[in-house]
Amino acid sequence: MNEKKLICPRKLSGFMELSPSKQMLFDDMVEKIRKVYKNSAFMPLDTPVLEYSEILMAKSGGSIDKEVYAFKKGDTDICMRYDLTVPLARYVAMNANDIAFPFKRYQIGKVYRGEKAQKGRFREFYQCDADIVGLDNLPVTADGEILEIVDKVFKALNLKIVNHISNRNILFGYIESLGLSQSASDILTILDKIDKIGKENALIELSVFIPDSNQCQKLIDLTLMRGSFDSVLEKIKGICTNETYEKGVRELEEIHSYLKATNVSENNYILDIGVIRGQNYYTGTVFEAKMPEHPEFSTVCGGGRYDNLASYYTDKKMPGVGLSIGLTRLFDLLDSSGLLPEVKPTNVKVQILPMGNDYLITALKLKTYLGNSIISEVNYEERNFKSKMKEANRKQIPYVIIIGEEEQQTDRYTLKNMTTGEQALLSKEECKFILQKSKRIQNKSFDEYLKEYKR
Amino acid sequence: MNEKKLICPRKLSGFMELSPSKQMLFDDMVEKIRKVYKNSAFMPLDTPVLEYSEILMAKSGGSIDKEVYAFKKGDTDICMRYDLTVPLARYVAMNANDIAFPFKRYQIGKVYRGEKAQKGRFREFYQCDADIVGLDNLPVTADGEILEIVDKVFKALNLKIVNHISNRNILFGYIESLGLSQSASDILTILDKIDKIGKENALIELSVFIPDSNQCQKLIDLTLMRGSFDSVLEKIKGICTNETYEKGVRELEEIHSYLKATNVSENNYILDIGVIRGQNYYTGTVFEAKMPEHPEFSTVCGGGRYDNLASYYTDKKMPGVGLSIGLTRLFDLLDSSGLLPEVKPTNVKVQILPMGNDYLITALKLKTYLGNSIISEVNYEERNFKSKMKEANRKQIPYVIIIGEEEQQTDRYTLKNMTTGEQALLSKEECKFILQKSKRIQNKSFDEYLKEYKR
Repeated sequence: MNEKKLICPRKLSGFMELSPSKQMLFDDMVEKIRKVYKNSAFMPLDTPVLEYSEILMAKSGGSIDKEVYAFKKGDTDICMRYDLTVPLARYVAMNANDIAFPFKRYQIGKVYRGEKAQKGRFREFYQCDADIVGLDNLPVTADGEILEIVDKVFKALNLKIVNHISNRNILFGYIESLGLSQSASDILTILDKIDKIGKENALIELSVFIPDSNQCQKLIDLTLMRGSFDSVLEKIKGICTNETYEKGVRELEEIHSYLKATNVSENNYILDIGVIRGQNYYTGTVFEAKMPEHPEFSTVCGGGRYDNLASYYTDKKMPGVGLSIGLTRLFDLLDSSGLLPEVKPTNVKVQILPMGNDYLITALKLKTYLGNSIISEVNYEERNFKSKMKEANRKQIPYVIIIGEEEQQTDRYTLKNMTTGEQALLSKEECKFILQKSKRIQNKSFDEYLKEYKR
Repeated sequence: MNEKKLICPRKLSGFMELSPSKQMLFDDMVEKIRKVYKNSAFMPLDTPVLEYSEILMAKSGGSIDKEVYAFKKGDTDICMRYDLTVPLARYVAMNANDIAFPFKRYQIGKVYRGEKAQKGRFREFYQCDADIVGLDNLPVTADGEILEIVDKVFKALNLKIVNHISNRNILFGYIESLGLSQSASDILTILDKIDKIGKENALIELSVFIPDSNQCQKLIDLTLMRGSFDSVLEKIKGICTNETYEKGVRELEEIHSYLKATNVSENNYILDIGVIRGQNYYTGTVFEAKMPEHPEFSTVCGGGRYDNLASYYTDKKMPGVGLSIGLTRLFDLLDSSGLLPEVKPTNVKVQILPMGNDYLITALKLKTYLGNSIISEVNYEERNFKSKMKEANRKQIPYVIIIGEEEQQTDRYTLKNMTTGEQALLSKEECKFILQKSKRIQNKSFDEYLKEYKR
């Protein structure tokens, strides 16, 4: 007697687990992204999910951020990676002597953040990153290359985006011209939230650092400039003349020239000085891709230039530029907005139904004959024929082959198109031909195929 | 001045981290395996890496195996998955009402075991699993299907294997016939290690449970039977006549019939009664695929039938059968035995070299013209031309296009075959044609392509 207590099957909250049909759609997206990265001459990297805490927490001097999954195994302090950038920094610092720079790598993998669970937030999620890392220097052309890839990826995913591009040197330079470089970080934090808190509140907060309200206003006006590269560049040129500011302008011009030499449509990117990307490591180009038809999705891809990627681990200067797509979140948004392609319950093209165990071997032989290019399966369940047909229908399997006594004796098989209901007794060669030629949903009659077959 | 202390970049031991060139080979293997699973009508599943400890540790009544990575996050006891089978069991129990059975799923993902670090042992490794789970019952035909897939996978990987197949009911039945069912588990543990400890020691250890040395000897003889299905089935039939034993014989016969109806060569599988697969959940078919030319690799793929997959989580009976490939270990073995395909330092087909920044935009336009089907990159590094050519050579990039003043003025480009050294000034249409038609390593002269082009 089984008297044991059952454990309720459940998964941790904040962890996405898709049904296999939806997982197929997710995997399709991953494959499309991977293909763009590969075709752009990026090489794959697959770093461990676990790292020494000391490595991952270098930025905070070893203290563990409360969002990070950290634990001890034996004597070792271990963390689960919370992004793919810090592991990349560790990797390039560790293998600097074996790497050919500029190093173009992509990585698609799960990262972990123990954030408060809420709708749309995931504690385990895929990042799809592509970065270019140089040694000593990396021309801004690399930034253009990354921006071109952003465009290609979303084209491949068939999602319309506008990439909001800026260069941090514009605001850095302007703040410098006010003699406020030492407060730049605080000022940028305020500018970064104008959208959220509104212009008036931003003015009040800024006044702590910039007493002259006229200067404040001008800074906000600069931050709010957005539009085509040509028009915004025209406006911002000459507002400020220090080296930092002019570097920003020059780099934006170079990026614009780069993108014009490619297939990236000028409708797909704008210059948006308000793109700041938080208080992190970016030092030049920054960008956030948004879906104009879905502003509620906010940023679906972001990234930029960091001039000192691996500075916690090496004295070598390693500037980099990269992009990151949080695919788990994007997939969830597309799903809940009804923007995913139609879900298929199965990828089976034809199900072979032996009308009893006596015909099983004949069914297997036919499946073998059909070969690997047609996704087929033998239904060997111990159920009655009618319920099997019903199930095949429910699973939207497009074709069924029925095998009974007559079929086994004559080596001719009943092929049925589940969409039109047409069925006919055909040779295995004819079945294979029709199944190879036909699409999943197909109204063409068998005769039309067979005419072609006989030619 | 940068006075901060550097942190030595290092990774945890026992975690594989491949160079990007080797990672390409690894990814190729993953893709081949995935393709076989998909074409066999299996659907993808991607369960979280983290699970409630209570779920993963159900087997041991909640106590944490010392090899498992376990930790607390807030109040929650969490474990990293140590295989993909327990998460599958949790998934099918949790979603039983939404799943169409038999449920065929594959999962390729990382699992974690904090084993003692030693050569060939990994703490993080990929498992590539495919399982079929039934509800209430699952015909042994499913076992045949899994065995066929094992053969297909290794064919796709171009690795020669022999699958050693048995059925646990043979030894169970025999032990039952000796009236020793209550000691079956201990006896199987001894039989499982005959290869390691030798026949004589096995006899001694068995005598504790089976006093009659004649019976011991017969049991060992049975265990050591291996060979073609026809010959071994012939020998083992009738040795024992209880229901369990005969069920084992019958299932082996059915599997043999199944495999004969497919493309699986009879050279690729044998009946090997000694395959036991440890003291785990298998209840019928068991198998271990080995590479006959590399016995030192031991088992490269294993699996079998378990009649009660999800019994810790549900009262529903869910029999299953599956296969698992420990790909990280297999890749490591192939690598250290020199059995991997040749490593390419890059997948770039053509590198475009502008001879200075003045030609960068022309280079980018040419790259855009070549399109996505040719993997190309513009070399925008600030280095001299000679060192760039040397680097392209070192990276084994097959073609280079050089752009200087003449090329920019005439819209004709210097294409160079890095294998033969041939170079010529060609139109961009001609360059594209040659690059599309040529293989990576190619001794054919440009003229030969151009004749074809003009046609």
